[in-house]
Amino acid sequence: MKAAVLHEYNTSLSGKQFVSYEDVADPKIEHPSDVIVRIGGAGVCRTDLHIIEGIWRSKVDVKLPYIMGHENAGWVEEVGSGVESVRKGDPVICHPLVTSGHCLACRRGDDMHAEGSRFPGINANGGYAQYLATGERSLIKLPKSLAPKEVAPYTDAGLTAYRAAKKASRHLVPGEYCAIIGAGGLGHIGIQVVAALCAAEIIVIDRADQSLQLAKECGAHHVVKADGNEVQAVLNVTAGKGAEAVIDFVGEGESVAHGLAMTREAGTYYIVGYGGKIELPTMDMITSEKSIVGNLVGTYAELVELMALADRGRVNLATREYKLADANQALADLHHGQIKGRAVLIPS
Amino acid sequence: MKAAVLHEYNTSLSGKQFVSYEDVADPKIEHPSDVIVRIGGAGVCRTDLHIIEGIWRSKVDVKLPYIMGHENAGWVEEVGSGVESVRKGDPVICHPLVTSGHCLACRRGDDMHAEGSRFPGINANGGYAQYLATGERSLIKLPKSLAPKEVAPYTDAGLTAYRAAKKASRHLVPGEYCAIIGAGGLGHIGIQVVAALCAAEIIVIDRADQSLQLAKECGAHHVVKADGNEVQAVLNVTAGKGAEAVIDFVGEGESVAHGLAMTREAGTYYIVGYGGKIELPTMDMITSEKSIVGNLVGTYAELVELMALADRGRVNLATREYKLADANQALADLHHGQIKGRAVLIPS
Amino acid sequence: MKAAVLHEYNTSLSGKQFVSYEDVADPKIEHPSDVIVRIGGAGVCRTDLHIIEGIWRSKVDVKLPYIMGHENAGWVEEVGSGVESVRKGDPVICHPLVTSGHCLACRRGDDMHAEGSRFPGINANGGYAQYLATGERSLIKLPKSLAPKEVAPYTDAGLTAYRAAKKASRHLVPGEYCAIIGAGGLGHIGIQVVAALCAAEIIVIDRADQSLQLAKECGAHHVVKADGNEVQAVLNVTAGKGAEAVIDFVGEGESVAHGLAMTREAGTYYIVGYGGKIELPTMDMITSEKSIVGNLVGTYAELVELMALADRGRVNLATREYKLADANQALADLHHGQIKGRAVLIPS
Amino acid sequence: MKAAVLHEYNTSLSGKQFVSYEDVADPKIEHPSDVIVRIGGAGVCRTDLHIIEGIWRSKVDVKLPYIMGHENAGWVEEVGSGVESVRKGDPVICHPLVTSGHCLACRRGDDMHAEGSRFPGINANGGYAQYLATGERSLIKLPKSLAPKEVAPYTDAGLTAYRAAKKASRHLVPGEYCAIIGAGGLGHIGIQVVAALCAAEIIVIDRADQSLQLAKECGAHHVVKADGNEVQAVLNVTAGKGAEAVIDFVGEGESVAHGLAMTREAGTYYIVGYGGKIELPTMDMITSEKSIVGNLVGTYAELVELMALADRGRVNLATREYKLADANQALADLHHGQIKGRAVLIPS
Repeated sequence: MKAAVLHEYNTSLSGKQFVSYEDVADPKIEHPSDVIVRIGGAGVCRTDLHIIEGIWRSKVDVKLPYIMGHENAGWVEEVGSGVESVRKGDPVICHPLVTSGHCLACRRGDDMHAEGSRFPGINANGGYAQYLATGERSLIKLPKSLAPKEVAPYTDAGLTAYRAAKKASRHLVPGEYCAIIGAGGLGHIGIQVVAALCAAEIIVIDRADQSLQLAKECGAHHVVKADGNEVQAVLNVTAGKGAEAVIDFVGEGESVAHGLAMTREAGTYYIVGYGGKIELPTMDMITSEKSIVGNLVGTYAELVELMALADRGRVNLATREYKLADANQALADLHHGQIKGRAVLIPS
Repeated sequence: MKAAVLHEYNTSLSGKQFVSYEDVADPKIEHPSDVIVRIGGAGVCRTDLHIIEGIWRSKVDVKLPYIMGHENAGWVEEVGSGVESVRKGDPVICHPLVTSGHCLACRRGDDMHAEGSRFPGINANGGYAQYLATGERSLIKLPKSLAPKEVAPYTDAGLTAYRAAKKASRHLVPGEYCAIIGAGGLGHIGIQVVAALCAAEIIVIDRADQSLQLAKECGAHHVVKADGNEVQAVLNVTAGKGAEAVIDFVGEGESVAHGLAMTREAGTYYIVGYGGKIELPTMDMITSEKSIVGNLVGTYAELVELMALADRGRVNLATREYKLADANQALADLHHGQIKGRAVLIPS
Repeated sequence: MKAAVLHEYNTSLSGKQFVSYEDVADPKIEHPSDVIVRIGGAGVCRTDLHIIEGIWRSKVDVKLPYIMGHENAGWVEEVGSGVESVRKGDPVICHPLVTSGHCLACRRGDDMHAEGSRFPGINANGGYAQYLATGERSLIKLPKSLAPKEVAPYTDAGLTAYRAAKKASRHLVPGEYCAIIGAGGLGHIGIQVVAALCAAEIIVIDRADQSLQLAKECGAHHVVKADGNEVQAVLNVTAGKGAEAVIDFVGEGESVAHGLAMTREAGTYYIVGYGGKIELPTMDMITSEKSIVGNLVGTYAELVELMALADRGRVNLATREYKLADANQALADLHHGQIKGRAVLIPS
Repeated sequence: MKAAVLHEYNTSLSGKQFVSYEDVADPKIEHPSDVIVRIGGAGVCRTDLHIIEGIWRSKVDVKLPYIMGHENAGWVEEVGSGVESVRKGDPVICHPLVTSGHCLACRRGDDMHAEGSRFPGINANGGYAQYLATGERSLIKLPKSLAPKEVAPYTDAGLTAYRAAKKASRHLVPGEYCAIIGAGGLGHIGIQVVAALCAAEIIVIDRADQSLQLAKECGAHHVVKADGNEVQAVLNVTAGKGAEAVIDFVGEGESVAHGLAMTREAGTYYIVGYGGKIELPTMDMITSEKSIVGNLVGTYAELVELMALADRGRVNLATREYKLADANQALADLHHGQIKGRAVLIPS
């Protein structure tokens, strides 16, 4: 099959050649619960840039060359002997984690913290390819309203945004505020999910006018230009008190300090983006009684919930299609901030 | 009346004279809801040392000289014209915050985040004295089983420990672990509360053998000496995974980094002690999906709950009595780590 | 002042004269926290009909003659000596319960279960009058967007619907269903609240085509005529499984049995309307693991939340205005099912 | 193998021969995930008597003759080709439900509401036998401290009591009360679980002095003889207000009406036992804002939690051993109320 393969790290993200479009061996069924999916679309994620930079080397054990791509959807191509719930031809979206389902975390529905799981595209071959090896437990059948290439980025960008937004919506009541930092690939989903799941007023902060425009279309009630004065701007909207929930899809540079500063006393700062650092005196956590909550993708059931929203048109994904052969262009465009929404690679 | 008055800050906590035992004017009823309490006992808190050091100067607006003491219990001495729920002679414990009850936080039961509240001993005259001015809404009548001087430290040390321990107990299920850092004035209450409110196994970490001994008496299932290897020791107890909840009553020096390191994936680090700093990459919060939760004293209803535990003997407070005239000795002993449990000042 | 006074019970609701429009003494300030409100509008509730029928006689202790009207809004006319948070002329909506705020339920924010409370219009004189005696703790200042006569029914009809709908929205996730029985005065608010607070699909069941039309305007995704086959109709919409939440605003006749039958396994049946009976074998509760949840008005904080929704146009109240002098006509129209939304009495 | 087989219903439970001890065919591995367990002990449950009476005929589809016994533990005897997590000889306890794990309920950790599940002993052959066919997902490995015959009744009696008690403990705070009706096979576990998971005061109601004695040993703080005056007795203990949680392990006769009457305003009545009927006016649910919650066994994860409690000695099961050949004696003794705790059948 054809695939876009990562052969070496590029710590400065210099040049235009990050991956190589080439022929590789097809994936094979090895276990009774394995499923091969023919890729309809694979999302391109900022994490892919971080992988190329080598940031993830210390966190995951993967040998180069390998195939990135952890946001995948397509059609079932082949199933293992034990597979009962899907069959060849079914349109499916792939939960990013492959699990056995036997550990206690899985038994509690908390797939993300499964023991002994595999994460194709992160620590195993992913979906920048014509075919992907995954497992039965990772597949959700798509309704007719949703085509694979339109939904692929929901599996990570969408799901991560959904989980954080859902956590926030559980405690936000009418009259309260949700500040969202970053209206890019994840953020623009997050805005729609918060708007669907609760009635908090939504304030979106971003550097780019284009993103703020997208934010408004997604349901933001207030938009704030990230020009250095964003904390004061959020305080102005919230009667000087800050937002009860802040969801930070940036997580680097000043966004962390700003995000914590615009969180109301007793409020929660949800951290989704990464690359930066949290630094604050313990005393500030005590006197304000704030919480800081980390977010890691989402569960299988949460992806089912997100698909229900998408099916009903409550969430829409802004995508831009690239041929799989043009993966480098997609990565470069993402690196240079030239993509509104999310890039998706489509095998020919 | 007699009081132990703070006249000037002492940033190095040098010498032995921190406060001055002297005559001051009696507090007076000024509002219909005011209550004057004759002090039966006032707890001596590490926060008092931090106040003397001047750490709190930037956080609260208080002019010297003033009277510290935010952990108070005694008997009602005089009531304002509008007071209906207590009368002269009633033994009472004082919730540390004085509130009007009209703001939305109070209406939701979240007194700690009241707007326009007063905190005697912190930003107004406190209980290192014969009499204290407080409000009707701050008073809980004591059952016969509990004498004011025995329970005074519950109002802050106890209540703060209770609130953090209660938050942890809400998500801890049998088979999970709660690590508690610091078995001093707050910690030894926290251990008992966790033991009373859930069935998690309790691991206590402290530098002092005396404190670890107290921890065992309070219900710790495992004790760990804080000798630099405490993270590994906790991992050893928890099958290499860490504790689902970590409650840090120290919050300075290495305890923060250690506390976060011994928190299990998807677990929560509750920060109670302060003086130190939280520093970690956002990426570590993402990949582990941990939460960091600040804790600020507790609500009136939580103090009622804690009194119910104390009344039934489910929580016991280790106290050491000092005469109010010996306040400096109590502060010095606390500073030098020579108090097991909590010092209480008793007016003569 | 003028008032519409109830002089005797009328168990069959026969005739057209239920109350007498006459002169009565003005209410007076008796306690420091008392407030007199000049009525801008008083909602007419089905409970008022039940009171006239005598159904409530065994539940509350009230002597005839007295003034009904528990859904009140207007302007502050006079305040007691201790009142600080409102002043003459403020437009206000009245939380239906008058409480001292000292009991533990109030301290936890659970005003509805206050000890020693008063419920004007139920067990004390209410708002079918020019003036009403209430308390400072019951008042919420209105934003300029909301006129008293437009919002009065929110205090009970709206608040009761809000509380039940909010409870349901806390557990409803995308892909799940909320069935709402009855789209009248309460139900049409409940539909809007569920739509605002979560993304469940909403199925509304009612006998009247006019109500089903209103339901659609309020956000219902599916409407079902209550013609005896409504359980099957709900099962058809929900793939044979029933709704995860059912909110029954009728609570009499067959609605209870039908409501329980259309509740999904492990789902919750919220009972709001009354007059009927719950009857089912304990075995049916066990094998289905359903819950039945009673609902009683709502808290002060919940009314603040509902006002935030109304202020932003997320909830709209269908009202029909009557002069206070025409109270009997309003009661008769309600009794004969001729009111779309909610009747409001307006003093001249 | 030998088994105690049910050949016909006996609606009056007359005589002494309910089942027949005889030779039957051994169960076989049919699917890759199947596991055959050699029975170490099988609990005898009141539900078995209800099955014999024919009460369950309308609820489950099972053909006679079949083998009862849904509380099973033993050792793995044989595994299917796909089984990875257990192997021959492992001591195991069997979660009562056999599921595929693919439905959304299972994916959320809510095994009890799985689609397409099997319940050996209820709708398939159970453990009144030497061998049992179950599935990999139903097995929990036992720690060395726990022998199969000692723990078998935890799988249903224990787990059902655990789930209801855990639900109650989630909202019970210190100062509140939990009333438990019935201190038999389920109840005596429920008492221990409530005592382990929260600090509520426990009031136990039972007809039998022997059971009240057991209740005290299990941690009851107050015991009440069910002599017709039990509601008043509970009100006396609770200052006239009733218990915040009532767990009814009887669920028939007057226990339902009594249980609801002793539930505090805004409290919850958990129904576990069955055979009787819930009957009350909807108005009583409204004015009291009570909840009624059904309970159906528990999840796999909850059984893991219960085993953690048992392993640490926080819960102890009172059992009485019978030979499998004496199954009729055990059933008769249970029917006549002559078993303290739980009967367990042991194959020779």
